[in-house]
Amino acid sequence: MNHQLHKLSEWMGKEKIDFCFITSPENVFYLSGFLSDPHERLLALAVFRDQEPFLVVPSMEKEDAKNSGWDQEIIGYTDIQNPWKMIEQSIDKRISSVQKIAIEKEHLNVERYEELLQLFSSATFVSAEEKLRKLRMVKDEKELSIIKEACALADYAVEVGCNELEEGKTELEIIAAIEYALKKKGVTEMSFSTMVLTGANAASPHGTPGLTKIKKGDLVLFDLGVVVDGYCSDITRTVAFGEINDKQKEIYDTVLKSQLAAIDAVKPGVTCADVDLASRNLIAEAGFGEYFPHRLGHGLGISIHEYPSVTETNSLVLEKGMVFTIEPGIYVPNVAGVRIEDDVYVTENGIEVLTKFPKELQIIK
Amino acid sequence: MNHQLHKLSEWMGKEKIDFCFITSPENVFYLSGFLSDPHERLLALAVFRDQEPFLVVPSMEKEDAKNSGWDQEIIGYTDIQNPWKMIEQSIDKRISSVQKIAIEKEHLNVERYEELLQLFSSATFVSAEEKLRKLRMVKDEKELSIIKEACALADYAVEVGCNELEEGKTELEIIAAIEYALKKKGVTEMSFSTMVLTGANAASPHGTPGLTKIKKGDLVLFDLGVVVDGYCSDITRTVAFGEINDKQKEIYDTVLKSQLAAIDAVKPGVTCADVDLASRNLIAEAGFGEYFPHRLGHGLGISIHEYPSVTETNSLVLEKGMVFTIEPGIYVPNVAGVRIEDDVYVTENGIEVLTKFPKELQIIK
Repeated sequence: MNHQLHKLSEWMGKEKIDFCFITSPENVFYLSGFLSDPHERLLALAVFRDQEPFLVVPSMEKEDAKNSGWDQEIIGYTDIQNPWKMIEQSIDKRISSVQKIAIEKEHLNVERYEELLQLFSSATFVSAEEKLRKLRMVKDEKELSIIKEACALADYAVEVGCNELEEGKTELEIIAAIEYALKKKGVTEMSFSTMVLTGANAASPHGTPGLTKIKKGDLVLFDLGVVVDGYCSDITRTVAFGEINDKQKEIYDTVLKSQLAAIDAVKPGVTCADVDLASRNLIAEAGFGEYFPHRLGHGLGISIHEYPSVTETNSLVLEKGMVFTIEPGIYVPNVAGVRIEDDVYVTENGIEVLTKFPKELQIIK
Repeated sequence: MNHQLHKLSEWMGKEKIDFCFITSPENVFYLSGFLSDPHERLLALAVFRDQEPFLVVPSMEKEDAKNSGWDQEIIGYTDIQNPWKMIEQSIDKRISSVQKIAIEKEHLNVERYEELLQLFSSATFVSAEEKLRKLRMVKDEKELSIIKEACALADYAVEVGCNELEEGKTELEIIAAIEYALKKKGVTEMSFSTMVLTGANAASPHGTPGLTKIKKGDLVLFDLGVVVDGYCSDITRTVAFGEINDKQKEIYDTVLKSQLAAIDAVKPGVTCADVDLASRNLIAEAGFGEYFPHRLGHGLGISIHEYPSVTETNSLVLEKGMVFTIEPGIYVPNVAGVRIEDDVYVTENGIEVLTKFPKELQIIK
């Protein structure tokens, strides 16, 4: 049994949960190693306290599940078979009386919930999500090494973007060039829609890329990430296209200082709020407090947004193995939008910064 | 009230449903005209029999909802507000006793369902999905004209792909070039992951694009679609890169004939099965029956897979306004994979084919 399943079943013992019925592809992947997007078909992992877990997959994915390394029971069902009957039998074989079932209440849909209610009408249903979020928050060495690979590709993507900047090109063209270069390296999935924002568009924290053309004197903001083996990276860099004015430079310098201050603050034992405030206070002191309207960062891993949430009110204490973003930003409408974001890893004594593209202001001629 | 809401409330009258609580972004868009991806936040549309409907959106999207043309009530909630209290009040204002609520059982999650159960503990919950699928199946003129635009861009994308073919380029490079060209035209979203498959990869109905290089004598399969104003297109073309052998040609000719036979069969009054079989029988007669392992086609619109499902057993009768794909394929392992797919519209007397890229075998030198 892998350490993820082991920790989950420990928790189940404490909570007297008979089984967990996990259906989100992210959590199934986390617990089983099998990564799959089943669309509307059922994908599930049943985890027990002392018995062998089993996977439920569409028949055509059974081989893939085995090849992913899963060597325990797999229920495969075709489009004309009802998987619930098979699930019931596999559970009956393992436990005789079911009192308490953990499900993902934010993921499981009503249709499937009603199937479970019918099979286990006297059971109570609790949520497994909070526990899984906490487990996923602390990464092991294998996860870290995959995330590092994803970060290196994100660095490369920003480099490509900088090299592509040219008077008159649109934001969407730069994005296309970045994704072209990544596809050439075999990347098949981005963490989220790649953002290249320029000028006034970058000065809104909710700007979306379009046909705006790049022109000299603009700041250009790149926000992007790459998926490697199911894990995400996420980087933001803001660069100058030609010379920028003093106000833009002041904003850039303030964001950079505040980002470095947050990095300095990270180590096991401090809280998320400590880290957020290390950055936020510095921006406020520089007079830009009202232009930094979002949290400092978010955890990332299998999902692009995970725990921990790095906000000014989160008292969660950092521990070794956590991976999250540090991404302060200042957005002054019609003046400048600057955000600088790294992915970081909490080490035994401090921090390792995983994204490495330079942060001193890059002026692209 | 738009005709979509009108038809839904007619059905609610017949079924004695007090209100529909719609939460899937696709159905909210279909009924309200407001297109939004709220991620983990709640987006909802409440529809009543005789009362004004209301939208529930995150506060920051309230303006967008108004700008989309929605001129009825909007509940906006911030991240620190509980929307359920506000929803309860807005419903209480409209109806005093709630007996029956329609929800999307395949979409609504357990957490939100439990909120509704708590507010309306004596109500029964039925599914609105089947009704909405049927409503969405028949497109109006406005929807048709958007889909035509999406189809024209899909045609263009295939043309770009053909022009990009070159000895030694990888599948992912061709995809990147196609998406680059579309982004230059302002396209921001594809209907699904663009597929370019070549050689043995194309000969599997489940192939995924990778670093396989294109070489002379290969068939190259393009399967892609473009999203325009919330509506999808979907096209497949298979072309020859250099001269191909007689067996490959025979397979191509068989798929093309069977695709044209299905197109010929489409008109109001015939069933989905009639259309599927017009194509399938021809492939079987040519001796390739076992190599055509999927349905003939699927409806499309706001989602890439909608009703009608064009299978050999679906007795649903075609009517004017339906839009679906016709996409027979033959996949002989290590010999050839060919699929030809058009999007079609059922007219008053027959069919209009919406995708127009040539289907006679294109030999790219």
